[in-house]
Amino acid sequence: MQEGRVHLKEKQFISIIKNLLKSEYIGDDCAYVKDLGIVVSQDSLVEGVHFLLECITPFQLGYKSVMVNLSDIASSGAEPKYLTVSLSLPDNVDADFIKEFYSGMKYACGNGIKIIGGDITGADKIFISVCAIGKTQGRNISSRKNAQIGQKVIVSGVHGSSSAGLKLLKEKKTEPQCLIKSHLEPKAQIEFGKNIGINVSGKYSMMDSSDGLMETLSTIAYESGVLLNIDFDKIPYDKEIERFENWHDLVLFGGEDYQIIATVPLEYQGGIEIGKVEKGSGVDLSISGQIIHYSKSDVDKKIFNHFKV
Amino acid sequence: MQEGRVHLKEKQFISIIKNLLKSEYIGDDCAYVKDLGIVVSQDSLVEGVHFLLECITPFQLGYKSVMVNLSDIASSGAEPKYLTVSLSLPDNVDADFIKEFYSGMKYACGNGIKIIGGDITGADKIFISVCAIGKTQGRNISSRKNAQIGQKVIVSGVHGSSSAGLKLLKEKKTEPQCLIKSHLEPKAQIEFGKNIGINVSGKYSMMDSSDGLMETLSTIAYESGVLLNIDFDKIPYDKEIERFENWHDLVLFGGEDYQIIATVPLEYQGGIEIGKVEKGSGVDLSISGQIIHYSKSDVDKKIFNHFKV
Repeated sequence: MQEGRVHLKEKQFISIIKNLLKSEYIGDDCAYVKDLGIVVSQDSLVEGVHFLLECITPFQLGYKSVMVNLSDIASSGAEPKYLTVSLSLPDNVDADFIKEFYSGMKYACGNGIKIIGGDITGADKIFISVCAIGKTQGRNISSRKNAQIGQKVIVSGVHGSSSAGLKLLKEKKTEPQCLIKSHLEPKAQIEFGKNIGINVSGKYSMMDSSDGLMETLSTIAYESGVLLNIDFDKIPYDKEIERFENWHDLVLFGGEDYQIIATVPLEYQGGIEIGKVEKGSGVDLSISGQIIHYSKSDVDKKIFNHFKV
Repeated sequence: MQEGRVHLKEKQFISIIKNLLKSEYIGDDCAYVKDLGIVVSQDSLVEGVHFLLECITPFQLGYKSVMVNLSDIASSGAEPKYLTVSLSLPDNVDADFIKEFYSGMKYACGNGIKIIGGDITGADKIFISVCAIGKTQGRNISSRKNAQIGQKVIVSGVHGSSSAGLKLLKEKKTEPQCLIKSHLEPKAQIEFGKNIGINVSGKYSMMDSSDGLMETLSTIAYESGVLLNIDFDKIPYDKEIERFENWHDLVLFGGEDYQIIATVPLEYQGGIEIGKVEKGSGVDLSISGQIIHYSKSDVDKKIFNHFKV
């Protein structure tokens, strides 16, 4: 729902919090707690902001709440292991909803990940907050600050499908199903993250594209102090989205695909290469025979204006 | 705010979730993850359910959000170490609120505990969900299932003050300040939990009294399959609450004092003894020359009827 989730105000608040806490942990999607050998991430889904009950089943909502958080852990390079779930529910939520919701969560967890706790309280609307814990043993943990000049930029899969699916849902359309499914049932790229976390040595950056591909690239470039040179033609997307007038924007700025973006050494096998890490700042995008330069603030402005709710 | 927080419906939902997940972790306030050497707890505070902005300052709200969660970790016997914070905020929340709120959080954390991450999203009302992580190294971790016949029941401090303070706030009174402060600025009993976690060997039970003294005693008795024999005259309370007509009920059933209740070997030094663990079930309360027996369902019904919102 909340395509404009990268609100400037939220960024301002995060900056205030960073200044106040002076915490070395805050910055990445996951906090890396070395002394305990874990990474920790917490994300919330709010009714009316991130989802509408008429567009998503309780099973899908449970499933997505888990996947969104597993995606953060996967993109740290760690092994997702445990979740706690905080649910705030209006009075009209019944036992059937709870059964379906937790069945969706359980399905998303598969065999390797366990829900170990949380709480349930009342509220006017549904609030879901999931905390995910990953194990770092045997893994090389990523940071958005760690892109190295000379590395290649790789992605785990298609971009634009989720926001195309959201557009269809908003227009009350039911086809193409594959796009709608991308929005309602995203899949955290756990194996992709695992391969990198185990096999890449040395510094590298990795993030999921929850806030959109460009936002992710721009963040890595800014935090690492590098330029990312990206070729639009190499970015994978589902041909079905070409039916949308602004499909380039869906690929570049649409959120919630939960793919992984990483900068890794050239010799790393795996992923789809979309560009290179170079000296400079921001993102250079080769598209339709042109090179468009995006600074951090260009991307922030574009997202704010384009997806303003 | 939510004195009726122990809703029967929430208990029913938790029972559904336990059955569905068949998780060995769910049950205590903290999940004990042995392979990582941590305990994890997550609790939420919802505007209009757990607090009203006209009754609590942003500083106090931040402080309380942390203390509520540290209290869970302390009552496991583990060492509170790290927090993540998920905030959902309406548009009218400004930078000053964030500064005050996080200053309150930081103050509650002191030097030993760090806020390491979380997220900020939009919402109609303020929703705060905190996940707390504690380290179990060198600690003997409690379980509500572990009360042993022959142990004594001890508490860390006074009960009834917080709910008395809430009553005063609801009546827009400002005195006695000490009671109001008990509600707005509770203090997690970290040292009390630490002493037990370090010094008690063998099985013991420990919980905080967030849901009220009787509810806590009743839960320990039920989960451990024992009778707790409690002497009302030994329960510490602030004499100021005797001004309330139903002050016995405030002591027994009022919530949010965030004291610790534990069953420990007789030789343990520390805490205020209020009773004994015996063979049987439920709670026998000696009060005003009578012995009243409370079964688990007696306590549930009493809380539900008495504090129904």
